[in-house]
Amino acid sequence: MSHIHYVNPKGSMDQLSHLEVELLAKKAHSELYALYRNCSLAVLNSGAVTDDSRALLSRYPDFDINLIAKERGISLELHNPPPSAFVDERIIRNIQYHLFAVLRDIVFVNELNRRINPCNIQDSAHITNQVFSVLRNAKALIVGEPPNLVVCWGGHSINQTEYQYCRAVGLELGHRELNIVTGCGPGVMEAPMKGAAIGHSNQRYKNSRFIGITEPSIIASEPPNPIVNELIIMPDIEKRLEAFVRIGHGIVIFPGGPGTFEELLYILGVKLNPENQTQKLPLILTGPKESRAYFETIDRFIGETLGQEAQQLYEIIIDDPVKVARRMRAAMQEIKEFRYQHGDSYAFNWSLKISPEFQTPFIPTHDNMANLDLHLNQAKMDLAANLRCVFSGIVAGNIKPDTQDKIAEFGKFKLQGDPVLMEKVDRVLQDFIQQHRMKLPGGEAYEPCYEIVK
Amino acid sequence: MSHIHYVNPKGSMDQLSHLEVELLAKKAHSELYALYRNCSLAVLNSGAVTDDSRALLSRYPDFDINLIAKERGISLELHNPPPSAFVDERIIRNIQYHLFAVLRDIVFVNELNRRINPCNIQDSAHITNQVFSVLRNAKALIVGEPPNLVVCWGGHSINQTEYQYCRAVGLELGHRELNIVTGCGPGVMEAPMKGAAIGHSNQRYKNSRFIGITEPSIIASEPPNPIVNELIIMPDIEKRLEAFVRIGHGIVIFPGGPGTFEELLYILGVKLNPENQTQKLPLILTGPKESRAYFETIDRFIGETLGQEAQQLYEIIIDDPVKVARRMRAAMQEIKEFRYQHGDSYAFNWSLKISPEFQTPFIPTHDNMANLDLHLNQAKMDLAANLRCVFSGIVAGNIKPDTQDKIAEFGKFKLQGDPVLMEKVDRVLQDFIQQHRMKLPGGEAYEPCYEIVK
Amino acid sequence: MSHIHYVNPKGSMDQLSHLEVELLAKKAHSELYALYRNCSLAVLNSGAVTDDSRALLSRYPDFDINLIAKERGISLELHNPPPSAFVDERIIRNIQYHLFAVLRDIVFVNELNRRINPCNIQDSAHITNQVFSVLRNAKALIVGEPPNLVVCWGGHSINQTEYQYCRAVGLELGHRELNIVTGCGPGVMEAPMKGAAIGHSNQRYKNSRFIGITEPSIIASEPPNPIVNELIIMPDIEKRLEAFVRIGHGIVIFPGGPGTFEELLYILGVKLNPENQTQKLPLILTGPKESRAYFETIDRFIGETLGQEAQQLYEIIIDDPVKVARRMRAAMQEIKEFRYQHGDSYAFNWSLKISPEFQTPFIPTHDNMANLDLHLNQAKMDLAANLRCVFSGIVAGNIKPDTQDKIAEFGKFKLQGDPVLMEKVDRVLQDFIQQHRMKLPGGEAYEPCYEIVK
Amino acid sequence: MSHIHYVNPKGSMDQLSHLEVELLAKKAHSELYALYRNCSLAVLNSGAVTDDSRALLSRYPDFDINLIAKERGISLELHNPPPSAFVDERIIRNIQYHLFAVLRDIVFVNELNRRINPCNIQDSAHITNQVFSVLRNAKALIVGEPPNLVVCWGGHSINQTEYQYCRAVGLELGHRELNIVTGCGPGVMEAPMKGAAIGHSNQRYKNSRFIGITEPSIIASEPPNPIVNELIIMPDIEKRLEAFVRIGHGIVIFPGGPGTFEELLYILGVKLNPENQTQKLPLILTGPKESRAYFETIDRFIGETLGQEAQQLYEIIIDDPVKVARRMRAAMQEIKEFRYQHGDSYAFNWSLKISPEFQTPFIPTHDNMANLDLHLNQAKMDLAANLRCVFSGIVAGNIKPDTQDKIAEFGKFKLQGDPVLMEKVDRVLQDFIQQHRMKLPGGEAYEPCYEIVK
Repeated sequence: MSHIHYVNPKGSMDQLSHLEVELLAKKAHSELYALYRNCSLAVLNSGAVTDDSRALLSRYPDFDINLIAKERGISLELHNPPPSAFVDERIIRNIQYHLFAVLRDIVFVNELNRRINPCNIQDSAHITNQVFSVLRNAKALIVGEPPNLVVCWGGHSINQTEYQYCRAVGLELGHRELNIVTGCGPGVMEAPMKGAAIGHSNQRYKNSRFIGITEPSIIASEPPNPIVNELIIMPDIEKRLEAFVRIGHGIVIFPGGPGTFEELLYILGVKLNPENQTQKLPLILTGPKESRAYFETIDRFIGETLGQEAQQLYEIIIDDPVKVARRMRAAMQEIKEFRYQHGDSYAFNWSLKISPEFQTPFIPTHDNMANLDLHLNQAKMDLAANLRCVFSGIVAGNIKPDTQDKIAEFGKFKLQGDPVLMEKVDRVLQDFIQQHRMKLPGGEAYEPCYEIVK
Repeated sequence: MSHIHYVNPKGSMDQLSHLEVELLAKKAHSELYALYRNCSLAVLNSGAVTDDSRALLSRYPDFDINLIAKERGISLELHNPPPSAFVDERIIRNIQYHLFAVLRDIVFVNELNRRINPCNIQDSAHITNQVFSVLRNAKALIVGEPPNLVVCWGGHSINQTEYQYCRAVGLELGHRELNIVTGCGPGVMEAPMKGAAIGHSNQRYKNSRFIGITEPSIIASEPPNPIVNELIIMPDIEKRLEAFVRIGHGIVIFPGGPGTFEELLYILGVKLNPENQTQKLPLILTGPKESRAYFETIDRFIGETLGQEAQQLYEIIIDDPVKVARRMRAAMQEIKEFRYQHGDSYAFNWSLKISPEFQTPFIPTHDNMANLDLHLNQAKMDLAANLRCVFSGIVAGNIKPDTQDKIAEFGKFKLQGDPVLMEKVDRVLQDFIQQHRMKLPGGEAYEPCYEIVK
Repeated sequence: MSHIHYVNPKGSMDQLSHLEVELLAKKAHSELYALYRNCSLAVLNSGAVTDDSRALLSRYPDFDINLIAKERGISLELHNPPPSAFVDERIIRNIQYHLFAVLRDIVFVNELNRRINPCNIQDSAHITNQVFSVLRNAKALIVGEPPNLVVCWGGHSINQTEYQYCRAVGLELGHRELNIVTGCGPGVMEAPMKGAAIGHSNQRYKNSRFIGITEPSIIASEPPNPIVNELIIMPDIEKRLEAFVRIGHGIVIFPGGPGTFEELLYILGVKLNPENQTQKLPLILTGPKESRAYFETIDRFIGETLGQEAQQLYEIIIDDPVKVARRMRAAMQEIKEFRYQHGDSYAFNWSLKISPEFQTPFIPTHDNMANLDLHLNQAKMDLAANLRCVFSGIVAGNIKPDTQDKIAEFGKFKLQGDPVLMEKVDRVLQDFIQQHRMKLPGGEAYEPCYEIVK
Repeated sequence: MSHIHYVNPKGSMDQLSHLEVELLAKKAHSELYALYRNCSLAVLNSGAVTDDSRALLSRYPDFDINLIAKERGISLELHNPPPSAFVDERIIRNIQYHLFAVLRDIVFVNELNRRINPCNIQDSAHITNQVFSVLRNAKALIVGEPPNLVVCWGGHSINQTEYQYCRAVGLELGHRELNIVTGCGPGVMEAPMKGAAIGHSNQRYKNSRFIGITEPSIIASEPPNPIVNELIIMPDIEKRLEAFVRIGHGIVIFPGGPGTFEELLYILGVKLNPENQTQKLPLILTGPKESRAYFETIDRFIGETLGQEAQQLYEIIIDDPVKVARRMRAAMQEIKEFRYQHGDSYAFNWSLKISPEFQTPFIPTHDNMANLDLHLNQAKMDLAANLRCVFSGIVAGNIKPDTQDKIAEFGKFKLQGDPVLMEKVDRVLQDFIQQHRMKLPGGEAYEPCYEIVK
């Protein structure tokens, strides 16, 4: 027997045209419908702690979602949704908003793809434009709002001490009326938002923004936590990263795994670009004193590969939430003045230069992984880009179903390059494994999806 | 010496991408820029009473408008704007919103055109979809708002008695918390809004909507009055008419000229469509007792051409604002129930059937005017469509610069057809001339732009 | 048969204690109930144009009002209320608010009277405190609101030209986002509010304040117009005048009758006080060019009695709404700075000195009128106070039932004093009679309620 | 050197009259000033965990507070306030509101006292009226708000497991859009609010009410936690208890000490009143499974003293936050219907009967304690009242400075009565001591302030 729930629209995608409704109709059995269904299911699992998207999706094989035209716009008909999305048979309001955010972004990106590209132009300006368009359509770019968005990156699998620390940092950020943008899952993606929610409550701050930016291949393994009040689904991982750095005004990196390290390498690569020398985009690495070793590992690796120049682009603060929050608060004023002088939007950092190698999707095939240019004698910015791809591939091998299938079929990724460099890469990865940062704890020991070819 | 004003964004088009800014840059000297400049200038003449768009535009030859990227989104730089748009050097807020509505709609329609049409599809569903898209993008479709929009049609050149009557009807509509949508100029397009503003104030109704729907070829001859708080610029006259009847929940027609008559014929044609038989869309013709003759003329003509069937589609109410308002208020509840039962949106009447001859732009060339099928033995719906074109052409000949040029070059429009019908058309037009309803009073006598070929 | 309407609470008096409900219960047949019933009835006649309170009240002998405790606080049960207060059986929202404003102020003043006065202290500070308390309880003192309140005084019986002019001034004040406070009846008390409502609408100004300040003995002859959105009932005429000048930031006087002249003499008396020399409280007398003679009369009388010093305290502006509005707008900034420097509230002018003769209620008995000290050789401030009493008495004789009764019984008021002064007083009064400014037009010729003893 | 901070007004006491400012001026060295200063200091210690009010107050001997008239109303000048009230030199917004709540309630209660009582009437109706007046003046009675207030009682000194459980219950209450009212300190008074804040955030519920009701003798030992967003200071402990049960719609009792037990006895006494038989006021005792013994102790004592009749007035739910929240949510609908049918306010339970022995302040002198009627053969309601006084006195002896002084001087309280009853009282108290529920842990062992006379 099928349980059916009807969900009324909430948020910024309230009216659909009849053509749009047809597009997502189940009867189409289209690829778009499958994408739409899976993202919706992921959102309905909001709050679940997992990193196995396939398991999560396969837990609800009878789940279906239909769009219905109604007097108040459109309505969603949910068949057999996860019960955890409901409180006493009523859907949790944030999840309700998230469902319509999924609808909004999938419809919009589909239209964008039909529109922009007569000759399939994918130059840097067009990609940035696309990132901007998705964010604007999601109403994430608020006119007149002064800079106040702190990006929080870090693992979705962290220990209790780290969780409490992240919440404490969130509280201090919230006390200073800063808002939070994360990758939208549990762990570090939730704790600072929880802290900030209390901080905002203490300050009676009413405009709390808890933005989660995700993308279709990752949403099911990191379902948005229920604190997120603005969910945005970017088309792919590179546009997601670009969205973070153009919409955020400062970045805090907490402890995490290879995904977090990918993010650090991305932002270092961007900041190393000589054209970004005058940019204001503070980058702080922080954690409780118990996690000091983690940051030492990272800092050592960066020093040894990207050099002191890269190390100067961030600040490591151990066990001091107030200091982190004060740094961010102080930076906001500088950013405001900088943007004002340069006529750049507070809401979207147009003037940040992101070179094409950080914008073009990297597909972690065995070939692509094997062919990465992993030598020390290249421009630091390029080395950062290539190292970013290494960790992007490892994340995919760890948690993305498609990549896991390929590894099952073709064996582990082979990574090769300059032995000195490879040894350092190996050491970082070993450290991560030892610190249980490669996958969620529970279950068996971590089985690496790669091997270093020596 | 050039006077420069800077205007900050207001309303729903707050952020532009850099690509969009380039599109409208003056340096392009593009057609789009010209369109944008002229619509902006028209809006800055908000409140002007004229019907000579060329005169209005030529009064400000030095006017220029530039988009500038700014920290709060974009800013407009106005060179030598009309002083009447400002109070003590500060732009009137509604005009400020209107300027950004122009920007929003021109950018959006331009994108729509690039998007939708690989094979230039213009079937009925796509046209309706386009109308929907423009309205949605303008945030004119409000989810959850119960039916409350009354379309007010009528002349922009009416006498003082009629003006007071229209205001009295507006007051009663406002007392019943109904909102107003008009063609956005002065006269009948302003008076009911003024009345409703007072009615809303008495009722402490805070969600006043005074919507003006216009199109580029008409905006400069009927600049939006300053009460309008939602300005929408549709791409052409047919989409403008479709927007009225899909967004409005009831229609009141006050005295007016050939433009008003075109609107009446349009709505009668739509309502005569057999597929619309069960539709709820109340149509009331009303005016002060002094205007009784006007409605007798119209009612006679409709009776003689479209027959009793058409006459039953409207009600004439003379000199009774309360009755008009009560009818409209009562209809809203019926519409709500009808839409609810049929799963149709309160905000946009999807189920109303508009046949292609009412959707396809009619270009009033001499040939098109001469070739109209003006005979009585055709379906009433088709006759209404053809008569609509007659009056559409006459409006163009009266006030649109391009058409006026053609008439100067090729002579008056020739109208021909069934002599019985032509005699009736002639009689209505003569009545309009006598009642000074063909053009604004002042200046010379009305010189017809057409002749009936007998 | 009795028509009963139930009215739910709106506004700031939403919860009553059971003791308060008892206080106003009809069964009490108390004086308080009678006062409460009559003020409520006056409010339900909102919009009526009259100056005969007795006629108005006697038109609804069956009217009754009961308080009932309800789940949402209290509810009013109205028996046989005037139908004009309703639109299609639903009470007009502003009138609904007004009904609860009456309740609020009557309950509060009653409590004040029980509280403050063990020894019946009525010194200046306590009276001012009482004025403040009533205004604060009515939530009329808004923290943080910068100065923007323009007091508009003038007749409730003015001609059409004057009405249009007052509306035009209101439009310009509204365009400059100024709010209006008046005596709350029709005529000049309505026209500027109507104009300002449109001006605010054009400017999308959402915080419109249309404050009407009245008192029990006058409310029924000048029922609040339906634009008023904050109604305040002060205990007596002197506290009402004090409320105007402490809450308002500037004063505009339009044409009017003896009531208006009383108000002018009051404010001149206050401004003549040497302690108020540095006060910022702009005073403008204005009207259409057709009313020029009226202002000449007044200006002449002031010059001849209170002298040039008094004439310098106001500015006469003929037929220039924009100039009036600009003056007021400009003054607001000065007032803001002045209050800021002196640590005085923007919302209530504590530092204005009002001497006791302007605070103590003047009861216009025959004796009090006959004994007024009407000689030229006294301090200007005192002369202004005495002249104010003359006109206050005449207003009472014209429109207040109690005073009319006394005149019917004891004959006309006798005014006596310095012959030179008396001649001037006589001349002003004759001018008012000629200009039909003494009572509403219609009905018989004006029969004076006073005579000058020579 | 003195640190001075200026604090601008926030909340509902924004304007003070000059007379009110004088009242609280420090120069008066009045008792009122001392009360005002100490309550303000307590509020500035928001978040402090203590139960030693004397210690807390004596930590800031240089603290001073002055009222200053300012352009925006009044301003507070703080000398040497506790730094914890500030984030980067800016006062925490909730504390800012709390400071003005203190001002509001102290000024208002002072006025009430001057007003009501010519003959010192203290009958039941007047006391209830006073409770109502203070709550109304604090704007805590919101018209039209349906029942949604859950009173949470319990200790401010609870262990970590209990804290987490209270937060979990708060989360579930918050998920059901229920609001919280507590005694406003730390521990149980904070945890459910924190949980509910997250629940409200998940549900995008914007009208969060976290009400803390305190009184002057307790505020410094239980300073309001920073989540409280409505602070109310009742004049004494009995009015505080009455405020809880008239404003709250349901009551949850978590583990606590003698204060909590006093509250339970109070509400049982009220519910045992035969006139309250039909009242809807659900009472749930709940805690984690680790606290099961605590509830067994209590339940046993109630059964043995007040009998089964009393036991049926509450439900004990162990370790099931969802069940607690569902019960409360379900009750709200019943309460709504009950109040609707009985014409009783949703916001204030007028119809609950509270007999005078629960309204009259009990002063815990040695004599009063010794003379309590502690026998089993009296009406259950009266026994509950007397037992309530026992625990009220013990709370005072534990934490109130005045009472502590008396005990230091005169020795422990002597409790005497029916030996069977006394033995049960003794056992409960011994259990509390063993469970460390008598005073905050830390410091020495608990030294009882009473002895049972056998």
